[in-house]
Amino acid sequence: MVEKILAINAGSSSLKFKLYLMPDEQVMIHGMVDRIGHSDAVFTYQTEDGAKHDTTESVKDHTEATELVIKALNESGVIKDKSEIVGIGHRVSHGGNYYTQSVEINDDVAKRISELSVLSPLHNPANLLGIEAFEKLLPEAREVAVFDTSFHSTMPPKAYTYALPYKYIEKYHIRRYGFHGQSHQYIYSVVADRFGEQEADKLISCHLGNGCSICAIKDGKSVNTSMGFTPLAGLVMGTRSGDIDPEILPFLEEKEHLDSEDIRSMLNHESGVLGISGVSNDIRDVLKAEADGNKRAKLALDVYAHQIQQFIGAYTTDLGGLKVLAFTAGVGEHSAPIRARVCQGLEYLGIKIDEAKNQANDIEIQASDSKVKVVVIPTDEELIIARETAKVIG
Amino acid sequence: MVEKILAINAGSSSLKFKLYLMPDEQVMIHGMVDRIGHSDAVFTYQTEDGAKHDTTESVKDHTEATELVIKALNESGVIKDKSEIVGIGHRVSHGGNYYTQSVEINDDVAKRISELSVLSPLHNPANLLGIEAFEKLLPEAREVAVFDTSFHSTMPPKAYTYALPYKYIEKYHIRRYGFHGQSHQYIYSVVADRFGEQEADKLISCHLGNGCSICAIKDGKSVNTSMGFTPLAGLVMGTRSGDIDPEILPFLEEKEHLDSEDIRSMLNHESGVLGISGVSNDIRDVLKAEADGNKRAKLALDVYAHQIQQFIGAYTTDLGGLKVLAFTAGVGEHSAPIRARVCQGLEYLGIKIDEAKNQANDIEIQASDSKVKVVVIPTDEELIIARETAKVIG
Repeated sequence: MVEKILAINAGSSSLKFKLYLMPDEQVMIHGMVDRIGHSDAVFTYQTEDGAKHDTTESVKDHTEATELVIKALNESGVIKDKSEIVGIGHRVSHGGNYYTQSVEINDDVAKRISELSVLSPLHNPANLLGIEAFEKLLPEAREVAVFDTSFHSTMPPKAYTYALPYKYIEKYHIRRYGFHGQSHQYIYSVVADRFGEQEADKLISCHLGNGCSICAIKDGKSVNTSMGFTPLAGLVMGTRSGDIDPEILPFLEEKEHLDSEDIRSMLNHESGVLGISGVSNDIRDVLKAEADGNKRAKLALDVYAHQIQQFIGAYTTDLGGLKVLAFTAGVGEHSAPIRARVCQGLEYLGIKIDEAKNQANDIEIQASDSKVKVVVIPTDEELIIARETAKVIG
Repeated sequence: MVEKILAINAGSSSLKFKLYLMPDEQVMIHGMVDRIGHSDAVFTYQTEDGAKHDTTESVKDHTEATELVIKALNESGVIKDKSEIVGIGHRVSHGGNYYTQSVEINDDVAKRISELSVLSPLHNPANLLGIEAFEKLLPEAREVAVFDTSFHSTMPPKAYTYALPYKYIEKYHIRRYGFHGQSHQYIYSVVADRFGEQEADKLISCHLGNGCSICAIKDGKSVNTSMGFTPLAGLVMGTRSGDIDPEILPFLEEKEHLDSEDIRSMLNHESGVLGISGVSNDIRDVLKAEADGNKRAKLALDVYAHQIQQFIGAYTTDLGGLKVLAFTAGVGEHSAPIRARVCQGLEYLGIKIDEAKNQANDIEIQASDSKVKVVVIPTDEELIIARETAKVIG
């Protein structure tokens, strides 16, 4: 049966939406409300025919943002009545140990998502604001939570367990959770569609965007991923440090008289490529500065690419080898120089790229004699949200 | 010229010594004073003929311990007069950015080692106590500092730079330093002697003892290593966490009201294999508990071995492949089950061990059809100290 499903990604001051006609996976309209809570919030959307809409107005809260979205669905003609929307899928940051699958939202689930805010203080509360606004305005649609963490629930204990006192592991459910689950899951689905499940059975997916994470995917299942208890861990990112010697933190706390919130803020907002380069958190800016002779920019990019290589090497041990290496998200999809830097020196793993194809952002950029397929795939987290929602309510 | 050189490893309450006849590298006597500062300190030593001595007495400080050592050298007949000792090599934990080589100790060097205590608060001050005691009692011998960190000074910036705010990197010289340098240097020398420099040009050395670190050695030079700013980083160890998501620390500080010293203590003394298993920091005990069905013991060993595999995979990217994998130190030299666990699943890298040779602790334990040589080498940090000392004063 054909049904209209809305995929929602609610942040603390933004709300992104995409309406799908399922099971065709046809996007009817997509857009976002940004700067929620401000008098000059920006509402943009685009319909299937390519027509773009762009308004600036006061948007008090997520409920008002949701009203704007529903109004746009009506006015653009993609729905005649809001009852046509049978399912709403919400991206939810943290599902903790509870949610290894997407789940239909009821009061208990909403309560648990709220409790899990302790593990994702920036995102779960914002996700809940979106859930509550749609519950109020479209009470008859069935709402589904699609967790960033669920795809990684297949990781083995040896990959998700931190070597910390067990009392804390138990008391606070401290473990590697991993994030970007929808993206890595989407990448697997595209690779499996394109090459077949057998060729996709040893896949490393590199999500290089504002946040960066790598996932080792064996037979379609996440077996390791670089983000951890929080989205800070793993790779060097735009402003996030990724993994560092943990003892640097008590050292800096003492020397600089920093408290835990200062440390958290430094690691999340002042570190990464921005921290080393002093130039920008945007890889394009840093590449440009490097080309202009900025040495700290070069160092930042060297560290960034080296860390990606380290994880690719590490994750081949989880897979027992490698068949497909995938790049996605902002940097992964668009930055040929970063992809080239990452692949350089990995010939012993069978990775060899064709620089012309790389420059052209082709889907397949491996050289003809590469043993490993190297692919560039635009990610589509909303499509996974829509698919998961259709599956849960179907 | 034949000369007698003393290699010294001074800890806060212990002093180990080994007297070498150089350049023959013949050990004439070795031993240690333990429980310095106690009325029941233990002094043990063994001469070339195998005779063992063992006494318990009051030893007030490092000077008294050093007096005991010199007395033993005389009484055992390995020296007739203390002037025969021409050089004393001291293991020094941290050489910071200053010492990329071993160096003869003078007042300036001693002052700098003292200043570097900020980077190694547990070890540098103890190393200095040993230096000062021998300076007092053997003023005519030339003293040389052999740093744990020097061997890693060849790491490229992409491997030693943390993605932190640059102001802190500069102000506190925050970077990956690496430790166990004497051990990794020794392992390279044995591998190069045995197989030739060309076969030793892509070597991964796994020092698995009380502390654990891995080193990627390319053409005889360290190009990456798992310990970092401090010896806490990298692998899971007996009681140390190794790398974890840094954001776990502010999380625990807030939830458990811990301060920076509590965090440091937890990460260094209550974590690692002990933290997960709850059984012991000694791998032998944990293996036994696992055999008895203890699930947390199994989990601890799974995590321990998995982390070693992750670094082996990561460091093959620094080397562009792998030719020799070496195991050393307590666990590396003696634990066949851990070596087997680490090598399992790494066949794609060309690693395949012969289980009978592994069980027998043979020097070479690779299978006949293994592309990578897998070796078990008893480490000898004191010999590197003696060699470096002979080189510096020579």
